[in-house]
Amino acid sequence: MESRNIRLAVIPGDGIGTEVVAEGLKVLEAVGTKIEPTHYDLGAARYHRTGETLPDSVLDELRGYDAILLGAIGDPSVPPGILERDLLLRLRFAFDHYVNLRPVKLFPGVATPLAGTPTENIDMIVVREGTEGLYAGTGGVMRRGTPHEIATQESLNTAHGVERVVRYAFEKAKSRPRRKLTLVHKTNVLTFAGDLWQRTVNRVAEEYPEVGTDYCHIDAASMFFVTQPERFDVVVTDNLFGDIITDLGAAIAGGIGLAASGNINPEGAAPSMFEPVHGSAPDIAGQGKADPTATILSVSMLLDHLGLHDEAARVERAVADDIAERGGSRSTSEIGDDITARVSG
Amino acid sequence: MESRNIRLAVIPGDGIGTEVVAEGLKVLEAVGTKIEPTHYDLGAARYHRTGETLPDSVLDELRGYDAILLGAIGDPSVPPGILERDLLLRLRFAFDHYVNLRPVKLFPGVATPLAGTPTENIDMIVVREGTEGLYAGTGGVMRRGTPHEIATQESLNTAHGVERVVRYAFEKAKSRPRRKLTLVHKTNVLTFAGDLWQRTVNRVAEEYPEVGTDYCHIDAASMFFVTQPERFDVVVTDNLFGDIITDLGAAIAGGIGLAASGNINPEGAAPSMFEPVHGSAPDIAGQGKADPTATILSVSMLLDHLGLHDEAARVERAVADDIAERGGSRSTSEIGDDITARVSG
Ligand SMILES: CC(C)[C@H](C(=O)O)[C@@H](O)C(=O)O
Ligand SMILES: CC(C)[C@H](C(=O)O)[C@@H](O)C(=O)O
Repeated sequence: MESRNIRLAVIPGDGIGTEVVAEGLKVLEAVGTKIEPTHYDLGAARYHRTGETLPDSVLDELRGYDAILLGAIGDPSVPPGILERDLLLRLRFAFDHYVNLRPVKLFPGVATPLAGTPTENIDMIVVREGTEGLYAGTGGVMRRGTPHEIATQESLNTAHGVERVVRYAFEKAKSRPRRKLTLVHKTNVLTFAGDLWQRTVNRVAEEYPEVGTDYCHIDAASMFFVTQPERFDVVVTDNLFGDIITDLGAAIAGGIGLAASGNINPEGAAPSMFEPVHGSAPDIAGQGKADPTATILSVSMLLDHLGLHDEAARVERAVADDIAERGGSRSTSEIGDDITARVSG
Repeated sequence: MESRNIRLAVIPGDGIGTEVVAEGLKVLEAVGTKIEPTHYDLGAARYHRTGETLPDSVLDELRGYDAILLGAIGDPSVPPGILERDLLLRLRFAFDHYVNLRPVKLFPGVATPLAGTPTENIDMIVVREGTEGLYAGTGGVMRRGTPHEIATQESLNTAHGVERVVRYAFEKAKSRPRRKLTLVHKTNVLTFAGDLWQRTVNRVAEEYPEVGTDYCHIDAASMFFVTQPERFDVVVTDNLFGDIITDLGAAIAGGIGLAASGNINPEGAAPSMFEPVHGSAPDIAGQGKADPTATILSVSMLLDHLGLHDEAARVERAVADDIAERGGSRSTSEIGDDITARVSG
């Protein structure tokens, strides 16, 4: 991989997406990688201009890249679901990003909203399933707009889909000092899906005697994220529960401005995609107010995924150092510049 | 109603359920109501003894009461879902408890885990739909235990079911000083159900020009519960999102030991049921460690529902006073006795 340039597709997207991605690319350049970025104009603006969300030809082209860096997708001017389903989720599904990896880690110097919680108590990684569950998008509506309307949504869960992400989570747990894996679900209500998840965890656990396993209902887990975050090391969960709990995780770990994520195809059969957990934040877009740190940490995950471990570590260290010395309020590009300077220096 | 005794069915249930219900009844007696309680032995013990969860004859009998007080249901010795589905959820469904009312209110003197959050910033009420969504229990499994297993869960949402709970929520919002209603859903992914919820809120909102309406995705709402709880006044949401967000709400409002709830049939076509949000907590059961306050606050909601507003207010005040002076650690019955003394005195 080191011999040729790494080809990176960049999708800045909507709102603050473009602003934070610009800073991510600065850092990527400063770290001295042979990464060649190509920009793709996708999101609300293109949708309004051409009616396109993700043309098949673009999807095919994207498949040829080594990785994708994405800013944020979504705008209030587009009806809910269109860009999300036809662009963001389509990418996750088409490239079989079955691992949605989201660290929840409190950096030293960051104020958590949780009173009296020591920094080291918030250090977990959420392995969110990325390709099935309620995100399958199946369901429908009948008698729309009448008093007899019925709207359904279906959660689709397969042995194939659950087992591969559970295995990934066990591998992660095995590599961490605490070696603990917690399944988060709602097995007492979602009995069919919950049974598949729980049985799968139980079965795979036999191959990982060194990993301790635990179970927590999603409602209790939401409570424990706030009252006892130290309960969690590696969390494995389904697509929707993972969505909820990682925003909550971002909140306790100092805010959505710091939360990174990777949509990963572990076998490398298609490019993995890295993006901040936050959305396009139209309310603050264009004002230089967005914190690009989440994107820069996503760049670090991207580097790590591409095997550039030293570079990844340098970026993460630069972020940690920057965070530790934060003070005053800086613009998006000032934060990007400060982190870039640390990466270069 | 005042002329005859109020008939109350009491279902202590499992684990700490029996302990906290005993304290709730003490308070009920002290408040001087003409309430006549009848105990029902339902839960894990009965299930193990007889294989029964909720016999039809018992369900029919319960229908004749004015209200139900429930402790907690669930035990690890019973496979997940059996008692929940066939007992607790069956009651909610059979008695059409379409409003699951859960106040999230920080009492003065209670320490929230959220640093620097003033008491008055946490004061909302969650109106959780109680009879449909993913709790419908529909779905299934195919090729169970094989590598080709598929497990599904279905979320069923009806115009009937959504509209009635949305109307209830608007009425609540109208009666509160801030007059704000926030729909929490995930309209960008659960597009069919989300569309029904959003359209219903928009339509009913026209009849309530004095109520301001807002929308928040469940993931963002989970974050805002921690970072900006003052955003919320009345929250209306579906069954599963309501389950998650009210445990989170309990966490920020000082813990699950204080979170009350009512499963309400607003038309009185069947008895409403009041219960603490917490579960049976088998790990601390039988040790006198459980906090009965959530049950006692549920008793206050029960009194209010039965039209005994003064009595309800007296119980709530007794709890507030007790909480304000808390110190040292007290057993379940000590807390119950202290609150009872205030109610009587
Ligand atoms: C934008 C939305 C579809 C997306 C999701 O629900 O997965 C986002 O919330 C996320 O967490 O990446
Ligand atoms: C026990 C369980 C079925 C129940 C629910 O999910 O509704 C509980 O969590 C609650 O919130 O009352």
